[in-house]
Amino acid sequence: MMKLSRFLNSNRNALGKATDVRDGSALHALTFQAGISTGGKSSIQDRVFAPYSVFKGKAALSVEPVLPTFSKFGSGNLRVDRRGSMMLTFLPAIGERKYDHEKRQKFALSATEVGSLLSMGPKDSCEFFHDPSMLSSNAGQVRKNLSIKPHADGSGYFISLSVANNILKTAERFTVPVTTAEFTVLKTACSFALPHIMGWDRLTTPVPGTLASKLSKVDPQMPDLEWDK
Amino acid sequence: MMKLSRFLNSNRNALGKATDVRDGSALHALTFQAGISTGGKSSIQDRVFAPYSVFKGKAALSVEPVLPTFSKFGSGNLRVDRRGSMMLTFLPAIGERKYDHEKRQKFALSATEVGSLLSMGPKDSCEFFHDPSMLSSNAGQVRKNLSIKPHADGSGYFISLSVANNILKTAERFTVPVTTAEFTVLKTACSFALPHIMGWDRLTTPVPGTLASKLSKVDPQMPDLEWDK
Amino acid sequence: MMKLSRFLNSNRNALGKATDVRDGSALHALTFQAGISTGGKSSIQDRVFAPYSVFKGKAALSVEPVLPTFSKFGSGNLRVDRRGSMMLTFLPAIGERKYDHEKRQKFALSATEVGSLLSMGPKDSCEFFHDPSMLSSNAGQVRKNLSIKPHADGSGYFISLSVANNILKTAERFTVPVTTAEFTVLKTACSFALPHIMGWDRLTTPVPGTLASKLSKVDPQMPDLEWDK
Amino acid sequence: MMKLSRFLNSNRNALGKATDVRDGSALHALTFQAGISTGGKSSIQDRVFAPYSVFKGKAALSVEPVLPTFSKFGSGNLRVDRRGSMMLTFLPAIGERKYDHEKRQKFALSATEVGSLLSMGPKDSCEFFHDPSMLSSNAGQVRKNLSIKPHADGSGYFISLSVANNILKTAERFTVPVTTAEFTVLKTACSFALPHIMGWDRLTTPVPGTLASKLSKVDPQMPDLEWDK
Repeated sequence: MMKLSRFLNSNRNALGKATDVRDGSALHALTFQAGISTGGKSSIQDRVFAPYSVFKGKAALSVEPVLPTFSKFGSGNLRVDRRGSMMLTFLPAIGERKYDHEKRQKFALSATEVGSLLSMGPKDSCEFFHDPSMLSSNAGQVRKNLSIKPHADGSGYFISLSVANNILKTAERFTVPVTTAEFTVLKTACSFALPHIMGWDRLTTPVPGTLASKLSKVDPQMPDLEWDK
Repeated sequence: MMKLSRFLNSNRNALGKATDVRDGSALHALTFQAGISTGGKSSIQDRVFAPYSVFKGKAALSVEPVLPTFSKFGSGNLRVDRRGSMMLTFLPAIGERKYDHEKRQKFALSATEVGSLLSMGPKDSCEFFHDPSMLSSNAGQVRKNLSIKPHADGSGYFISLSVANNILKTAERFTVPVTTAEFTVLKTACSFALPHIMGWDRLTTPVPGTLASKLSKVDPQMPDLEWDK
Repeated sequence: MMKLSRFLNSNRNALGKATDVRDGSALHALTFQAGISTGGKSSIQDRVFAPYSVFKGKAALSVEPVLPTFSKFGSGNLRVDRRGSMMLTFLPAIGERKYDHEKRQKFALSATEVGSLLSMGPKDSCEFFHDPSMLSSNAGQVRKNLSIKPHADGSGYFISLSVANNILKTAERFTVPVTTAEFTVLKTACSFALPHIMGWDRLTTPVPGTLASKLSKVDPQMPDLEWDK
Repeated sequence: MMKLSRFLNSNRNALGKATDVRDGSALHALTFQAGISTGGKSSIQDRVFAPYSVFKGKAALSVEPVLPTFSKFGSGNLRVDRRGSMMLTFLPAIGERKYDHEKRQKFALSATEVGSLLSMGPKDSCEFFHDPSMLSSNAGQVRKNLSIKPHADGSGYFISLSVANNILKTAERFTVPVTTAEFTVLKTACSFALPHIMGWDRLTTPVPGTLASKLSKVDPQMPDLEWDK
């Protein structure tokens, strides 16, 4: 088991001083680790690691958009192949500013779940249930439950993830308190990311003068007109 | 008649398990069908199919921006040829999680109508009337009416489309209840899309060092100055 | 004098039917005219004409961002040469759905004035004064005054422009009522355009592996660090 | 010492008239100076100078995003190397519309501190403390304190920076009153800039048909799936 804490410790020795996870280099260690542990599967793909991370006493929460994938069909058209999401990753603390990357758990917010988060007022709460094996024979064996609940004094929220795994006979729970400032970053960043995880940033107009636009003049009745059926 | 339901059924057989339309592959089936049925008209154009879809008991609603088209005039200038819109597509349910793609009806929200939607508070409602044949001899023969009305308990909205066609002697009505979370996705995505359907994402600055910027120095009085007439 | 109305009339004859200015082709006529009348000055530059236009009984209002211009200095750095603005163009009505393009008046909102507009609640008003000749010997000869005032019933705003020209001995006043929906389009579009008229969309990161990023490693103390003086 | 005031004075002589710092050319002088004084360190890098500046009686405040830097790791992946920020630069006034560029002080808002600013209502205040030497032997020697406090009448905010330097035995304080309109520009521009300083604008989807997307089909289990550990 390769723990992030070990990496942070060696990092500390190398620099000859204490390392705060809020410092840039520790963040890089965290994302670097993530890169190594998953890199084996898709090492050719250019990926950008730029999570927004909140490090708290009992757990850390890292948020990052996952963009949709597209596939071609017909003569050059694209359709969404796998829809994007906002990926929340929780890591348990195993000491002061040490988090266990091996024990991380993930929860992928869909576009509509992001809409729930965006519509939350300071006293609102919300809760989502996921079954990662929903359509397989393991349906119901793993249950994930994400809840966002306001602090009593309105100064932020508790974001909690529970994972009950009947196969491994495990039950885990992570709770990360986030301040209003941190939640505002999440909302603003999710609002930016939402059209991207929906694939709407890929919609393009035919440029005048190209073959496509000339052909479209042969039949000016474009397929998207309101009265077209 | 090629119904979506048939496609979903075959999909179901292929996978050997029940298919939920909320699952990614069913969404692809839906957009794939859309691609086939309209592809004959503009098959050369690269189009991206990334609708935001809400599947409910009696009907489904699918929303997607339609970007404006531009044409050239003068020496390289562009003007908006056909203005963009937010296209709403309604499909009636014909069984559990089966929707009839052949009976779909469309309603294209203009930029100002998108402004109405964006300005709606939780208790507001709005209503739009369209006549697709407004300027032709068929004016008044087809009447479309879109209404957005809040749930009594403030938990979302009913989005309804009525289409009365005097020529075909038909009258159809679709009602899709959307939750606050789904409506927030619509608002956030429409807010992102609005400048795009207006064509404002195409406005560009001359890059220093190019011919255009050099010529503009010959006459520093640019055409857009406030006191220029 | 070439009036837009004449163009609209000929357009009407050509199509053999009434032309509503809300129809796409009339909008094109309007922007097309704008292109012709100013094209003589900067005909080489690729410009995109995509104004958001509101046509009302006594006047029309057309809004469009004007992007900043940049110039180079040092070894490849760019600075803002002329700051961008939101350009408001008013045209008086000279008949039913006919607007006199020759008598148009412009008012360019600065970034901070756009901030005023964005911060307006439904009962707020604001007012701006411009002197296009502020720093010249004609200072005080032309005075422009833009005011935005809420409707008594909260259903929108009156946007008015007064232009008093002491040299030409003229005084003009345009008032365009805009609905809440139209004002929401303006706010959403201005919010999108603001970073662009400020030039913030041009800020870029050095790409790893390029000369610039290698050189920056020679001196890791980047110029923008907080403790750099 | 090369003061901005001297530059403005010569500028004034050259133009033969008074120069208002709100005028474009004076703004350029300001950013131009900034370019010269820091250019020696990174003169090869293309930088864009487009600060949003507020010039007031006792001090000026200039705000500009600083984008993150990335480094490569593994086979083409990118990670954030130094996180971005919103850089606030304060300059003391040394006469009517004259600001001393040499005596400027900077304060870099992190993403979460930007979240605090974005979540502020008209009566809210916030305060941040920075120690630029936090992790070095000089820790505690320089203390920076930024506060944002509302005007009593709700018409804007006071933005103040205090810098106490125990090494140089100096203590400086800058206070810039900003109007609601100016603060709205800051909020809107920070909201635009936030995903950029987080590096989220660099997240990209593999394009269908490329090597990366083909390889990802060999192992359809992408690394970001929720149930991937």
